[in-house]
Amino acid sequence: MAETKQIDSLWLGADVVTMRDGHYNLIADGALAVHHGELIWVGPRSDMPDFTARQQHRFDGGIITPGLVDCHTHLVFGGDRSQEFEQRLNGVSYADIAAQGGGILATVRATRAATQAQLVTSARWRLARLLAEGVTTVEIKSGYGLDEQSELTMLRAIRELAQSVPADVKATCLAAHAFPPEFRDNPQGWIDILCQRLLPQVKAAGLADAVDAFCEHLAFSPAQVRTVFDCARALGLPVKLHAEQLSSLGGATLAAEYGALSADHLEYATEQDVRAMAQSGTVAVLLPGAFYLLRETQRPPVSVFRQYGVPMALASDANPGTSPALSLRLMMNMGCTLFGMTPEEALAGVTLWGAKALGMQATHGSLEAGKVANFVHWPLARPAELVYWLGGELPCQVIYRGEAQ
Amino acid sequence: MAETKQIDSLWLGADVVTMRDGHYNLIADGALAVHHGELIWVGPRSDMPDFTARQQHRFDGGIITPGLVDCHTHLVFGGDRSQEFEQRLNGVSYADIAAQGGGILATVRATRAATQAQLVTSARWRLARLLAEGVTTVEIKSGYGLDEQSELTMLRAIRELAQSVPADVKATCLAAHAFPPEFRDNPQGWIDILCQRLLPQVKAAGLADAVDAFCEHLAFSPAQVRTVFDCARALGLPVKLHAEQLSSLGGATLAAEYGALSADHLEYATEQDVRAMAQSGTVAVLLPGAFYLLRETQRPPVSVFRQYGVPMALASDANPGTSPALSLRLMMNMGCTLFGMTPEEALAGVTLWGAKALGMQATHGSLEAGKVANFVHWPLARPAELVYWLGGELPCQVIYRGEAQ
Ligand SMILES: [Zn+2]
Ligand SMILES: [Zn+2]
Repeated sequence: MAETKQIDSLWLGADVVTMRDGHYNLIADGALAVHHGELIWVGPRSDMPDFTARQQHRFDGGIITPGLVDCHTHLVFGGDRSQEFEQRLNGVSYADIAAQGGGILATVRATRAATQAQLVTSARWRLARLLAEGVTTVEIKSGYGLDEQSELTMLRAIRELAQSVPADVKATCLAAHAFPPEFRDNPQGWIDILCQRLLPQVKAAGLADAVDAFCEHLAFSPAQVRTVFDCARALGLPVKLHAEQLSSLGGATLAAEYGALSADHLEYATEQDVRAMAQSGTVAVLLPGAFYLLRETQRPPVSVFRQYGVPMALASDANPGTSPALSLRLMMNMGCTLFGMTPEEALAGVTLWGAKALGMQATHGSLEAGKVANFVHWPLARPAELVYWLGGELPCQVIYRGEAQ
Repeated sequence: MAETKQIDSLWLGADVVTMRDGHYNLIADGALAVHHGELIWVGPRSDMPDFTARQQHRFDGGIITPGLVDCHTHLVFGGDRSQEFEQRLNGVSYADIAAQGGGILATVRATRAATQAQLVTSARWRLARLLAEGVTTVEIKSGYGLDEQSELTMLRAIRELAQSVPADVKATCLAAHAFPPEFRDNPQGWIDILCQRLLPQVKAAGLADAVDAFCEHLAFSPAQVRTVFDCARALGLPVKLHAEQLSSLGGATLAAEYGALSADHLEYATEQDVRAMAQSGTVAVLLPGAFYLLRETQRPPVSVFRQYGVPMALASDANPGTSPALSLRLMMNMGCTLFGMTPEEALAGVTLWGAKALGMQATHGSLEAGKVANFVHWPLARPAELVYWLGGELPCQVIYRGEAQ
């Protein structure tokens, strides 16, 4: 006679939207068996083996999705830019705001002036908004310090934040976000510091899981990105890239050449970029929040990504300037409404493909045996409702590493 | 020696964004004195008379705004249309969806099939989302019953809902939303029922506070709206109108002629419409949710409303087809981002001018002595942050009729 397997918890009573292979793959009346924070069995209730669970949770209908993954954020920063936002809407020009010291440099000043503890506190409030609607994995970038110590402080703040929130947090070094004001006339000087001093320390202290850069006319040229990526590669750090947001520079192709985890934004990506990304397995991270707030009109080539089988992720890009977004569900709606994604693609974009953009698809992003037990119960009949309901916080129950939050 | 006035409660410790006259009129370190559910004194803490309050509430900073007013919703309906929403995004044409019985008629069928209790239950869930982010006054329209009994059931559901939520609820009869399928070839037949049977019963039973119609090529012509409005006027019911959403028919001018509380949508309003609205004191209710979801490009003439001093309200238009919006804060952001309103105008649009669109500006919509004590505390430094933070639920403390919720 077979022995009954003893496990930590069983979760029953809802339909399970597994997102296996990036599709709903919905299991009607599903069951999730959890042990030591991992899923050890996922399937229809009727097929479930005999488990003895210390805890049994029974939902009254609804759906269970993987915990959401926000794979591109700038959640750690000093100050906010609501005053500048209001000035712009009141008709003050970008030039006048820049002349007042506004824009990204305002955030750099406020970030440099903040202590690590202050950065953690303000970011925790913003992160709590994302977690409240089902996010269990989040990436956070540096890039507002723009000097050696301030970049290290930002990365340490991200690592500290990670210790105290019910979410898996990845840190990305984005010291190549912009050129510091001190190096306006000497860009190579900053690249030298970045490559010779900052990244080696980041690597040695384990402060980042990846290296990112902003490839754009007003930021880093493809040649400059190449220098940074060569350095990251030599240190064994994965790369990703802000590319083709405002113009077509071939950054996505360059990222693919370096086997980047993701290329992000991509409004101006060409078919050649997409082909290169398909070959390298680079995820296309689409960021509709900035597109919406900047009233852009050039949409990323969603149908070309689809045609070449490039997985599309969606993220908040949460940042104080172009996307003070606190909702991944709203980004899903914008991915559909503004970019023409389907609701299933949008959900894949904040689960399996978000995880892949962080190199975590083996353990995160879908509900399959062997993956971490990060999932969310929603009192909804169909997964498309996550996209359909516009704004507002849908009540949900978040389970992180097998524990109800 | 003056006697100390005994009152119910005092609220201290935050800046008060009064919205008097539709402007922030912010009081730094303000105080609100509440008695019998009304504001009896509002001003700077330092000027406060001597009160003895049974309860004293002291916030640790932040801002207090008036309770938000959502002056245009269709929150009561049967079913939802998330499946149709997903089909459209998956590439199914409007024609095919209509051939399957989709669109508004699907909602009419589901609404007719629902009991009053079912309508109340499903609407309460949606309304709870709006209330969670600070709404304390909401208007709800009928218009998915489209037969005599079903319209009455919808209006009774709205009245029933009003009994059990911490919000002031106004009911609007929108039986002139569309022509019922049974009257496709006999529109006058439905208008006769509406004017001769439905509205008199609605008036006699006190089931509606206003009468609305949808003036558009595929709905009611201006001449048909006139017939309905004549009937409403004879019964002493105020009117409002869905006008100029998809084309310019002069509906807004017609509404102004009848002294309408509001004309709503208004993407195609002309300067003549605006002039007429200014003369009649008709509020322009802007509905960016539908504009966004339908990917419209014709923006309402915000600068012309401004020029003529026509107050602009913003509302969710919450409805299952074109705007399943559950967040008034998101509508504020869209009013700014998509329509070019300022954050101050957006906040006035969901407070004082929202109240005016419901004929309630004497008692609601701003924080002034003599008005109801409906207000919200937000842990924010500046009112523009209500617009700046994109999506997500900001934590807030709602006070309805002087009672913390
Ligand atoms: Zn970014
Ligand atoms: Zn409407």
